[in-house]
Amino acid sequence: MTYLDHAATTPMLSVAVAAYTEALGRVGNPSSLHTAGRRARRDVEEARETIADAVGALPTEVVLSTGGTEGDNLAVKGLYWARRAQDARRTRVVVSAVEHHAVLDAAEWLASHEGATLVVLPVDAVGRVTPEALRAELAAHGDETALVSLMWANNEVGTVNDVRALAEVAHEFGVPLHTDAVQAVGSLPVDFAASGADALSLTGHKLGGPVGVGALLLRRDATCVPLLHGGGQERDVRSGTLDVAGTVALAAAVRAAVDAMPRRVVELAALRDDLVARLIEVVPDATLNGVPLDAPAVGGGPARLAGNAHLSFPGCEGDSLLMLLDAHEIECSTGSACTAGVARPSHVLLAMGVDEAAARGSLRFSLGHSSTAADVDAAVAAIGPVVERARGALARAGGERVGT
Amino acid sequence: MTYLDHAATTPMLSVAVAAYTEALGRVGNPSSLHTAGRRARRDVEEARETIADAVGALPTEVVLSTGGTEGDNLAVKGLYWARRAQDARRTRVVVSAVEHHAVLDAAEWLASHEGATLVVLPVDAVGRVTPEALRAELAAHGDETALVSLMWANNEVGTVNDVRALAEVAHEFGVPLHTDAVQAVGSLPVDFAASGADALSLTGHKLGGPVGVGALLLRRDATCVPLLHGGGQERDVRSGTLDVAGTVALAAAVRAAVDAMPRRVVELAALRDDLVARLIEVVPDATLNGVPLDAPAVGGGPARLAGNAHLSFPGCEGDSLLMLLDAHEIECSTGSACTAGVARPSHVLLAMGVDEAAARGSLRFSLGHSSTAADVDAAVAAIGPVVERARGALARAGGERVGT
Repeated sequence: MTYLDHAATTPMLSVAVAAYTEALGRVGNPSSLHTAGRRARRDVEEARETIADAVGALPTEVVLSTGGTEGDNLAVKGLYWARRAQDARRTRVVVSAVEHHAVLDAAEWLASHEGATLVVLPVDAVGRVTPEALRAELAAHGDETALVSLMWANNEVGTVNDVRALAEVAHEFGVPLHTDAVQAVGSLPVDFAASGADALSLTGHKLGGPVGVGALLLRRDATCVPLLHGGGQERDVRSGTLDVAGTVALAAAVRAAVDAMPRRVVELAALRDDLVARLIEVVPDATLNGVPLDAPAVGGGPARLAGNAHLSFPGCEGDSLLMLLDAHEIECSTGSACTAGVARPSHVLLAMGVDEAAARGSLRFSLGHSSTAADVDAAVAAIGPVVERARGALARAGGERVGT
Repeated sequence: MTYLDHAATTPMLSVAVAAYTEALGRVGNPSSLHTAGRRARRDVEEARETIADAVGALPTEVVLSTGGTEGDNLAVKGLYWARRAQDARRTRVVVSAVEHHAVLDAAEWLASHEGATLVVLPVDAVGRVTPEALRAELAAHGDETALVSLMWANNEVGTVNDVRALAEVAHEFGVPLHTDAVQAVGSLPVDFAASGADALSLTGHKLGGPVGVGALLLRRDATCVPLLHGGGQERDVRSGTLDVAGTVALAAAVRAAVDAMPRRVVELAALRDDLVARLIEVVPDATLNGVPLDAPAVGGGPARLAGNAHLSFPGCEGDSLLMLLDAHEIECSTGSACTAGVARPSHVLLAMGVDEAAARGSLRFSLGHSSTAADVDAAVAAIGPVVERARGALARAGGERVGT
C-alpha cells in the first residue's frame, strides 16, 4: 500500500515504540509514594522536561492529556469558564472558520449551553486568519472576549497562521490565545514561549508517537477550569492516572520529530512539490488549494505544511476518487479523517471561498516520515485513470451528487 | 520488590502486551475510509464486541474512553446536563460519601459551577450504601434528581455495593444510575445488563490492560452530553481519534481478566485471608477495615474485593508505615494513589465512622494477578519491626501528627 494520509495518523517512530515497550515492563502509578511509584513519577517528569525543551515551554507548562481533542476542549472550555468567572462580561469565544471540529464544536457547545457568544473569524482565500481580522473583532469587543482559539496549521489544506502576530493582537486587548498545533509540532518550527500563545494543544499520533497521549501547553498565569475532575494530577487542571509508557513514548517522538524537522521539511516539500506538479501534469485542470508552493515563509518556517498536497479535481466526487485510489492501493483522504464519511463539503474549503462543486471534488495527500519517491510515483501513475473513471461516474449520475 | 498495590495500577497481562505490540505495527485512523482505515475500524469494532461480551453489554453500549476519570466525569456531568435539559427541576446529583474523587469532585464542580445540588448519601460501618438510604432520598426528591452515581466496589477498603438493588431503587423513581466499576471489572462478576445500571465506567490499567484506555458503558436510551466535542466518534458522545492498539489491548485484558476471575477470586482471597490473619498475629491490635472476610456474598460474588486487605495499625502514621515498608521493599498504599501525598485522613474511612487517629494509621495492601505466597510472607516478615518503629516515631512526636 501507498500510505499518503499521514495527517490523519502517522506510524509510530521506532524510537517511540522502543520507549513505550521498555516502559511497559515497569509497573507503578506516578501518584504512588513507594519506590515503583517514584520511579514512574521520575519517568514522567523526565518525559515532561523533554517535551518542554523540544517545544520551547517550561516543564510546569506541560499538562499531559490524551490528545488533540482533549487539549482543544480543555483549552476552549476551561479558559472560557475561568475568564468568565473573573469577569461575567467575558462571554465571546473567537475562533476561525477553518478550525478543527474539536475547537469549533467545543465553542459551539459553549454558545448553545453555557451562555457564550460564538464569533467566527473569516479566513482569506488560502485559509489564513489575518491579524487585521482579529484586531477588528477585539477592538470592538475585547472586554467581552473570553478567549481566542486559532490553529497553528490547518489539517486539511496545510495553511500556516502567523501565531505570533495573532497572539500579539490578542494580548493588546488582554485576551488569551489558544492554538491547536496538532499538525504543527514536528512539522514546523514551534516555540511556545516565542509564539506568545497562552495555550497550545499537541498530540502524539500526528508526529510519530502513540495515539491517546498528548499535551496542552498552558502558561502558568493562565487559569483554566478542569474538564476532568478527580485525583488532581497535572496542576489540578487535568485529573486521571498518568500513562507512563505513553508519556515516555510521546517524549521520544516529540524529541525525534522536532530534531528531524528542518531536514524533513526540505525532503517532504521536495516530494510534495513533485507530486503536485506531476498530478497537474496528468490532470491539467486540477487545482491546488491553499497556499502556493512558492509562498514566502510564515513565522520562520514554511507557509504551508511541507507534507500537504490538497487538490480539487473538477467533475469528480472526492469520495469516488478516494475509493478508486484505494482500489489502486493508494491511501489518502478527502479532508479531515475526523469527518470522513460525512456527506458535506469541507467547512474549510467553503470558508476559503472554494465553490461547492470544487470542494466536493478534492483530495488531501499528506506525506510523512515514511514517505518515499515511490509513493509519489504510485499516486501519479494511478491518478489519470482514477479521475477519468470518477468523471464518468459523476457524468452518468447527470451531474447529481453520487455516493453517500 | 514485593508489589502489593495492584489497586493503584496492575502490570499489563502478557496477552494485552502482545495485542498492543501487534496492533502497533499497523497504521490507520479508524475514521479513515481507505483500506488501512477500514482495517483499523474493524480492529476497534472486534475489540468493542469482545469488551461488550465480557461485561454483559451490547457493542453499541461501549463508549471507548481514556479511563476511569474520563468515564466518571462524562457520566456524572453528561447525564446531569442531559437530564436537566429534559426537565429543569432535575438538579440533584446523588453520590455516596465514599466515591472516588473522579465522581465526588465532578459532582462538587456541578454544584459549585453548574447549578446542581450535591447530595451525599451516608454509608454504613463497612462502607456500603444501603438501598434504604437511596430510597429515602429519592422518595423525597426523585423528581428533582438528575442522576445517582454509586460505585460498584470501593477502591480503598474493597467494599462491594449491591448495584442491582440500588439500580432498582433508582428506576422506581425514574432516575438513571451510574456506577464506577473501575475496581470491579475482572475482580467481581460484572454483568451490565443484569445490573440494571444505566452507565458504568471501567478502565484498562486496573485489570491488566494499558493505562489511558477504558470505556463508559452507556445504555442506548441514556442521553449524555459530551465532555469532549469534535469529530463525533463514539456515538457523538465522545470525540477523539480512537486508539486502536490501546483498544485492542484493553479488549484482550478484559477478556482474560473476566475469564480468569472466578479462579482468581478464590486464589486471591486465600492469599489475602492468610495475609490479614498473619498481620494481626504479629500486630494483635491491628484491625481490618471494611467488610469482614467471612461476610455473605453480594450480587453473586464476594462482598469484598478478593485482593483487598485494609488495616489500621493503632499508634502509627500510615505514611510512616508506607515508607518504612518501602525500605523493606514492600510496596503498598495508605489509600487511593490518586490522593497519595495529601495529608488528610481518607474520606472513605471517616465516612465509615473510623476515628481520625485510626484512619491516619491505616494501610491498603492490594493483591493482583502477579501476587504470590512469597509476597504475603515478605509483608508479614516486615510488618513487626515496621510498626514498632512507626510507633516510636509517633510517640517521640508526642502524639502529634508527624510527616507532611
